[in-house]
Amino acid sequence: MNLADLIRRPPQWRRSGGPMSDVVFSSRVRLARNLAGMPFLTRCTETQLSEVAGLLRGALMRLSMGGETLYVDLAATDAVDRQLLVERHLISKQLAETDIPRGVAIAGDETVAVMVNEEDHLRVQVLRGGLRLDACYGEIRRLDEMLEGQLSFAFSSRFGYLTACPTNVGTGLRVSVMMHLPALRLTGKLETALRAARDMHLAVRGLYGEGTEALGDMFQLSNQVTLGRSEEQIVADFRDEVVPVFIDYERQARKALLEHRRMALHDKVHRALAVLRSARLISSEEALQLLSYVRLGLSLEILDGLGVEDINELGLVVQPAHLQKLYDKRMSSAERAEARAALLRQRLGGQGAVD
Amino acid sequence: MNLADLIRRPPQWRRSGGPMSDVVFSSRVRLARNLAGMPFLTRCTETQLSEVAGLLRGALMRLSMGGETLYVDLAATDAVDRQLLVERHLISKQLAETDIPRGVAIAGDETVAVMVNEEDHLRVQVLRGGLRLDACYGEIRRLDEMLEGQLSFAFSSRFGYLTACPTNVGTGLRVSVMMHLPALRLTGKLETALRAARDMHLAVRGLYGEGTEALGDMFQLSNQVTLGRSEEQIVADFRDEVVPVFIDYERQARKALLEHRRMALHDKVHRALAVLRSARLISSEEALQLLSYVRLGLSLEILDGLGVEDINELGLVVQPAHLQKLYDKRMSSAERAEARAALLRQRLGGQGAVD
Repeated sequence: MNLADLIRRPPQWRRSGGPMSDVVFSSRVRLARNLAGMPFLTRCTETQLSEVAGLLRGALMRLSMGGETLYVDLAATDAVDRQLLVERHLISKQLAETDIPRGVAIAGDETVAVMVNEEDHLRVQVLRGGLRLDACYGEIRRLDEMLEGQLSFAFSSRFGYLTACPTNVGTGLRVSVMMHLPALRLTGKLETALRAARDMHLAVRGLYGEGTEALGDMFQLSNQVTLGRSEEQIVADFRDEVVPVFIDYERQARKALLEHRRMALHDKVHRALAVLRSARLISSEEALQLLSYVRLGLSLEILDGLGVEDINELGLVVQPAHLQKLYDKRMSSAERAEARAALLRQRLGGQGAVD
Repeated sequence: MNLADLIRRPPQWRRSGGPMSDVVFSSRVRLARNLAGMPFLTRCTETQLSEVAGLLRGALMRLSMGGETLYVDLAATDAVDRQLLVERHLISKQLAETDIPRGVAIAGDETVAVMVNEEDHLRVQVLRGGLRLDACYGEIRRLDEMLEGQLSFAFSSRFGYLTACPTNVGTGLRVSVMMHLPALRLTGKLETALRAARDMHLAVRGLYGEGTEALGDMFQLSNQVTLGRSEEQIVADFRDEVVPVFIDYERQARKALLEHRRMALHDKVHRALAVLRSARLISSEEALQLLSYVRLGLSLEILDGLGVEDINELGLVVQPAHLQKLYDKRMSSAERAEARAALLRQRLGGQGAVD
């Protein structure tokens, strides 16, 4: 497997739906770990950074993850490849943009990605479609134990695992879900819901995590504090107390739309699909927004004849790096807008699909 | 023929196109006349207003116009009927909204409409599709002569025909064209063109004449001064000097769009048709704007399989009074938005047309 293979197929987890996938797009658990006896990244010399990267690459390639493991040395990739990995949620924007020795180990099925030299020496993430935090957590426990067998991590008996940012000290664990909240936005209740999330000490982020904007009505909600609580507690609270509240908010909003603004909702959904099937130029932002309405329309059975898994896949392939890899050339923003529109017409059976 | 018949068929002149109909939607010539020995309307008593209306109704019913003549006593109509006549350009908004004794005589083919007690005692208008000012003028000359045979008009050997507003004194003639100028707007050159029109002493008005806004990129250009020039001169100047300038501006703008913004133009046109074919709610303003893009797309052969005459007809039937007459009930703005969208889907063969 190499990087070029990635573009040929979407990750299976993204197509498979999963529990509560009408609202919960994906679940993610990640661990932050640092090597004992080695400074945090910001205090490493160039030599030490390379040493960490080399050491961890070796350890990760010996790890058994989902399918064959691909290790990508990010210093040896170009910007489009790194952007491709960001779009697939396999690395963070931050890791894409620094220029220190760094890399990522990716499981063949893309349910696991381990970033090396991001903010901590190691950032292990497990991803699944729908609300599947237990599965994510089980897998990350397994990976953590296997890594502990090979490596020695910075740990304090008083604080727990030590991390570069104090908010991660303790378990080093962060639990998050990517939620699709179009109805909350359409009913004007999004800000209230997100304020409630912040009051519950959750971090609310955009489609690509910290410092990114919400695209296609996707919002990442995650726990913010890991110190002083057991890992099991964090996962259980998040799964049983936190996420259901927001699922309920969104479902109530969808019900309200169906009951009180039925025609306006149908209008939005049908127009969205019509524009996706007929545009000749379309930006990534607009495409994601319209796909969001189509996804909502499928979930509420306003539309049929389309699979939500195909819509989820389109949400990935319309993005800039994916488009350029698919067409195998560098494209300007204007060229991408044209290629994106052609791709959408082709995939959605639109008018003029074979222009 | 009665008012209810009007809704059953669009006027033929609106469907027939005519010369330069890629840019010139319609041509119109009108005459203002007042009865000799009778005060102008603003100085008439109620009795005199009724007397004028009765006298002119009789004279108009004896006139031979295109097809059977329908005389509508506007004081006996409801607001929707009057709005229907405005939408068909058979009466002015002003005449629809006053409450004095007044009426309109309409030729069966709707190429002639004579308003009684609008601003002057008589306002005779002749309408044709495309650039057909000569035909309009010929017909209005014929009507004027026939009216002169029955009636005596206020005339001064020094000033010519006397009218309520000084700008109409002289010939009482106004010549105008309704132009479709979408490319000038899309290229940002509309303001410059309209400023040039005003510099040429033309009046620029919206879709429904004086004091109305431009809808669907339709602009009425008309001559502003009638004193001191012969009728033939006015018509010839307007036809040969004035209108061709604006036809050329618009055609140049269309050419520029095709050459330099081809994809953006195709995008606008295809999106417009897709939205018209799929919306579940649509306002009159938006429908007219989207029909404008479709009309442009047909003219530039970006679209085919649709007749421009059907698009012209839709531009009429999507309007509020037409919709209500078509569905034969009073509808709120929200109900109209739904009915309008359903009608457009049905007429344009859209998705969910038989919802």
